[in-house]
Amino acid sequence: MKPIPVIFVGGDHGEWRVERILAIRGASLDPCASVSRIEGTVEHAPGVWALRGVRTHERYTHLAEHDQLAVMQPDLGRQSSTCAVLIPLSKSEAWWQLSQDERREVLEARSHHIATGLRYLPAIARRLYHGREIGGAFDFLTWFEFAPADRAAFDELVAKLRGTEEWRYVDREVEVRLTRDR
Amino acid sequence: MKPIPVIFVGGDHGEWRVERILAIRGASLDPCASVSRIEGTVEHAPGVWALRGVRTHERYTHLAEHDQLAVMQPDLGRQSSTCAVLIPLSKSEAWWQLSQDERREVLEARSHHIATGLRYLPAIARRLYHGREIGGAFDFLTWFEFAPADRAAFDELVAKLRGTEEWRYVDREVEVRLTRDR
Repeated sequence: MKPIPVIFVGGDHGEWRVERILAIRGASLDPCASVSRIEGTVEHAPGVWALRGVRTHERYTHLAEHDQLAVMQPDLGRQSSTCAVLIPLSKSEAWWQLSQDERREVLEARSHHIATGLRYLPAIARRLYHGREIGGAFDFLTWFEFAPADRAAFDELVAKLRGTEEWRYVDREVEVRLTRDR
Repeated sequence: MKPIPVIFVGGDHGEWRVERILAIRGASLDPCASVSRIEGTVEHAPGVWALRGVRTHERYTHLAEHDQLAVMQPDLGRQSSTCAVLIPLSKSEAWWQLSQDERREVLEARSHHIATGLRYLPAIARRLYHGREIGGAFDFLTWFEFAPADRAAFDELVAKLRGTEEWRYVDREVEVRLTRDR
């Protein structure tokens, strides 16, 4: 799979209606009524804001985890998934200066990031985009989709991750809660 | 360090004169008289070809290797370094589908990529740029600088790397040999 560009556009109309935008750490995003997730183009769409990223190869996942993810991870766009959350997030300079083994140690051995995400599959579908290398406003854009009945599970998942050692390296995080019609 | 964009422009005039352009695997680059390495801008410079990349965090280096590199790796631009080589290179889909631990295993445990590079420091200065995430023509652009007396050492270094298991995943590689006045 070649890397696939994505743009998230916050605007007046789009597939996903904004329920709320919450600044978890650092500056928020400007208010808007809707968000569109546009994969496969680098065209700039008009909107209040636009966040760019790239869907590309996995950076920390080991083989056993990769295989588990491949089996468990549902595709996006399930009809029942009328809830979505976009989490744009950046990590500190201290994170990026760690070596690969140190980052993996913090992310998985000590923070159980991959294992925690796996426990919420297939209910909480997830897709990660990287923004750092392309000069995006955020290092990562993570997109989640789930059914209304799984809202509490999603809340638990993000609460667990935010309590980890890895999250001490997060220096900006915004949470954009979205819904759409079935 | 924030990621720094780079453009290599092959053209008519520039700091580095082309000695020869050699297609190691796959298609070559069009002939040109000179190459410029322009860091910090995404402006498109006129030329026969332009290759884009990003200088960013290390992807495979473990802490001990990182620290050794930090001590041994010379900066670019040494007055004695009148030889340079640009190696644009892409890896196959099979490589990018490996998980992080498998890629590290091939790259270092079985191919000794980092250890081999370290043995040629400080003679052969090296800087790696990533092109894959930004949709560049090559996955990697590696830039080497050294003194004329170290040409044989450089040849040995690339010959060793090309004989490794890691290189079986290379599906395009071009070698651009350059010189400049002192």
